[in-house]
Amino acid sequence: MVEILDTTLRDGTQGEGISLSVDDKVAIAKRLAAFGIHLIEGGWPGSNPKDAEFFRRMKGVDLGETRLAAFGATRRKGLLPEEDPSVLALLEAETPVVVLFGKSWTLHVLEALETTLEENLRMIEDTVAFFTRRGRRVVYDAEHFFDGYKEDPGYALATLEAAVRGGADTLVLCDTNGGTLPEEVYAITKAVVERFPHLRIGIHPHNDAELAVANALAAVRAGATHAQGTINGYGERCGNLNLTSFLPTLVFKYGIPAIPPERLKGLKELSHFVDERANQTPNRRAPYVGEAAFAHKAGVHVSAVLKNPRTYEHIPPEWVGNGRRFLVSDVAGRSNLLAKLQELGVDLSKEEAKRLLDEVKALEYEGYAFEGAEASFYLLAHRLKGGSLPFSVEGFSVFVHGSGLDTAWAEATVRVKVGESLQHTAAESPFGPVSALDRAFRKAVLQFYPELSDVELTDYKVRILSGQEAGTNSGVRVMIEMKRGEERFATVGASENILEASLKALTDGYAYALLYPSLKETVPRAG
Amino acid sequence: MVEILDTTLRDGTQGEGISLSVDDKVAIAKRLAAFGIHLIEGGWPGSNPKDAEFFRRMKGVDLGETRLAAFGATRRKGLLPEEDPSVLALLEAETPVVVLFGKSWTLHVLEALETTLEENLRMIEDTVAFFTRRGRRVVYDAEHFFDGYKEDPGYALATLEAAVRGGADTLVLCDTNGGTLPEEVYAITKAVVERFPHLRIGIHPHNDAELAVANALAAVRAGATHAQGTINGYGERCGNLNLTSFLPTLVFKYGIPAIPPERLKGLKELSHFVDERANQTPNRRAPYVGEAAFAHKAGVHVSAVLKNPRTYEHIPPEWVGNGRRFLVSDVAGRSNLLAKLQELGVDLSKEEAKRLLDEVKALEYEGYAFEGAEASFYLLAHRLKGGSLPFSVEGFSVFVHGSGLDTAWAEATVRVKVGESLQHTAAESPFGPVSALDRAFRKAVLQFYPELSDVELTDYKVRILSGQEAGTNSGVRVMIEMKRGEERFATVGASENILEASLKALTDGYAYALLYPSLKETVPRAG
Repeated sequence: MVEILDTTLRDGTQGEGISLSVDDKVAIAKRLAAFGIHLIEGGWPGSNPKDAEFFRRMKGVDLGETRLAAFGATRRKGLLPEEDPSVLALLEAETPVVVLFGKSWTLHVLEALETTLEENLRMIEDTVAFFTRRGRRVVYDAEHFFDGYKEDPGYALATLEAAVRGGADTLVLCDTNGGTLPEEVYAITKAVVERFPHLRIGIHPHNDAELAVANALAAVRAGATHAQGTINGYGERCGNLNLTSFLPTLVFKYGIPAIPPERLKGLKELSHFVDERANQTPNRRAPYVGEAAFAHKAGVHVSAVLKNPRTYEHIPPEWVGNGRRFLVSDVAGRSNLLAKLQELGVDLSKEEAKRLLDEVKALEYEGYAFEGAEASFYLLAHRLKGGSLPFSVEGFSVFVHGSGLDTAWAEATVRVKVGESLQHTAAESPFGPVSALDRAFRKAVLQFYPELSDVELTDYKVRILSGQEAGTNSGVRVMIEMKRGEERFATVGASENILEASLKALTDGYAYALLYPSLKETVPRAG
Repeated sequence: MVEILDTTLRDGTQGEGISLSVDDKVAIAKRLAAFGIHLIEGGWPGSNPKDAEFFRRMKGVDLGETRLAAFGATRRKGLLPEEDPSVLALLEAETPVVVLFGKSWTLHVLEALETTLEENLRMIEDTVAFFTRRGRRVVYDAEHFFDGYKEDPGYALATLEAAVRGGADTLVLCDTNGGTLPEEVYAITKAVVERFPHLRIGIHPHNDAELAVANALAAVRAGATHAQGTINGYGERCGNLNLTSFLPTLVFKYGIPAIPPERLKGLKELSHFVDERANQTPNRRAPYVGEAAFAHKAGVHVSAVLKNPRTYEHIPPEWVGNGRRFLVSDVAGRSNLLAKLQELGVDLSKEEAKRLLDEVKALEYEGYAFEGAEASFYLLAHRLKGGSLPFSVEGFSVFVHGSGLDTAWAEATVRVKVGESLQHTAAESPFGPVSALDRAFRKAVLQFYPELSDVELTDYKVRILSGQEAGTNSGVRVMIEMKRGEERFATVGASENILEASLKALTDGYAYALLYPSLKETVPRAG
């Protein structure tokens, strides 16, 4: 069995652009526990007050079988552990598990800590003992273990022995700089496992050479039974071991059920939940959990997968809560387009499909992108089949006024034809022009379609188009995501004018919500 | 030596969201050749007309020692090669090298091709021979080789023998579904190398288990001397072997100079060039070339790196054309902030630094993000030191009007104080409200600062802030990139109103261009 320690809340937040509030951290910790992670490293109470606050909040929270861990360094040189404020802050976190890191590499001892090799060994032993004597389980993180071992194996092993004398029950070999190669990790881990046969040996890789997953697997093959990583691979520089990739490989390909296989069905959801909390755009290309991980674009792939999914899928996507997708784009062949339409439940003749493909190409030339905006693609097919839209926008205006730079106010008008009736409405909003347009538009259509009151805007992205991409004009592409109940759908609008592009994407979303049959069937009507 | 085949232009474009025009492909091919890539796989002329056009365009282009390759499949069952239109299209590409793919896995032969195992062997031998008899070098891509070998090693090897009988000089083992483990790749590649000691054996991995780089390295250790991948790892599903990670590891860590080490100084630039052409946002966390690859956020890391970079960097960043960065953020310690200011050339007392840190925290709570918006951070420090700004915005208004959804027109006014003079200007733009604001603002300030005419807006991004991130309000964050000559700088603005946030970021950019000393010194004044 391999014990999993998640450090999303500690090492993960050292990644660029990752910032989590205490609320976020509490919410993520609960999800990780529900998923079955064994140890959650929640923060570094000695280094910042937000983390100390997190541990205070967690005292009342039941995590089931999951254990909470706090992270900290060995005592400072020349002090007793009980004299070091960081050590005391770590003690005050009152976690059953303490992760203590110490130096393994002579370079770091001499140049970063500026102390002697002997004092570093005492710092390790003293600090570990300080916590084990108080009943804590100590996981000892040997920082830069591989770099240290390659420079001076005798000293690197001596630091582990100091931790063992202090009472640590787990020795974790850290590839802190992330540049170690898998065969080195294998050989060095094996040497450590043989030297300490009665202790748990762990691995903590970083991804600076895109080898973190391979290094963790190499360590497990060499006998490691503890691994530290983060959800989605967040972390300092290029990130930590990506548990989202490591776990399914460990469970499905090595048959080591570190997390029970059926729990992995929640992997994609967990990955997106953490991205959402950290305000990160999910990586579409992420192994296992990315939107593109089981997305087929090449024509030959699509036709083979329709015959037998094993032909181009290394595992069934549902094992990790993902799904198969067929992509639409101007380079895609007819078979993708037909597969996509089938997925959406639209029947098109060969002739109609060809016309649709031509229209997709023309619109993509103008700056649209239909991959990922399936609701707009559905509307295109709907119109091509002669279907009408529930409304059409006849005109709009927006006025924004600000004194100084912090007081702006927006007003919008829209003229919308709904059936035979022309609605001319106006609305204002303190949240800017897109919000004002949305309010005016809802005013115009809600009296006819009250069920649209459940539809809400959840994401809004804007991208400037380069000359190449948008033909000769430089314009903007707006992608909008909306939801109604549990269903989410995305639309696209392109124009030289950002507000026009926004209104196109917005109205596509409302039209789709009215027209798409599965939405109509599954969502109770409000009106 | 390891021969490198780049398939960004073929397999790369099968990735979701990757679309390249013929112009883009020609430009990328030239850059790859200048970088020293040995073989460029430019497309699949039998599958789409855009690729056939690319090969026509390339006939007059000199790539130096780099060779161009076209990709295609073995002939269809029951036809002669000369009767198969795809084979003929491949011939017409007139490239010195042809990459032919064929089936190695019995599942694919029987279920996808729906033919017999014997006919598949004939298809491979015939098609390879068709090209070698016409003087082409044939690289044979054995699709799904590892999956095929695991199911039926005898048949998988028989397909390679068919390619050898046809005259192929390179046998490439493809992990098409991307799920093979490094130790399997090592063992199977070794068996093939031993079976065909006089041929070049290659590897073509995919990243579905985040193991593509490790798998390519395992193959090289087993004797492979040819590797196929893409810049930035573009490709079907989770992508292909990322050459941007593989090459520096191969060259610097294994000492195999597949590309001369001094050329790797252009790696980051190449990576960004390809992202730019493909209209992809560069991955900040990318190993070696990402903006965060040598970015230090944790306080302890920053102070150690300032003493000796080896403490937290696995290679010197300049080897791959990257640089060291220190991040500013609300969780960062004082030492990062001071390091960042030093980098920007700003001298602050301890007291001033503390106030600046407090202000950063407060603004990040409102939705600002200063990581990556260093020009706005610089202005913050400048103001804190009592520095004044060259202008201040006293008010603005924007009016957008459209009939229907394709005719919108925007007008903006701004009131700007420049020194003692109050400018009230107006401008209109067919390119939307941000463009109209930019034009009105330039009208107001250019008469005072004509040198700003060289400054231009190059990128504009908008992000909706979630409730958590922006305190209690939901607002937007706008990030703007501008350039003057070769210098690029980024700014940030946040507000509930998208136009107000845009104007904040825009005016920060112009203020920075006037105030930041290095810009002033290096850019010749226009006025």
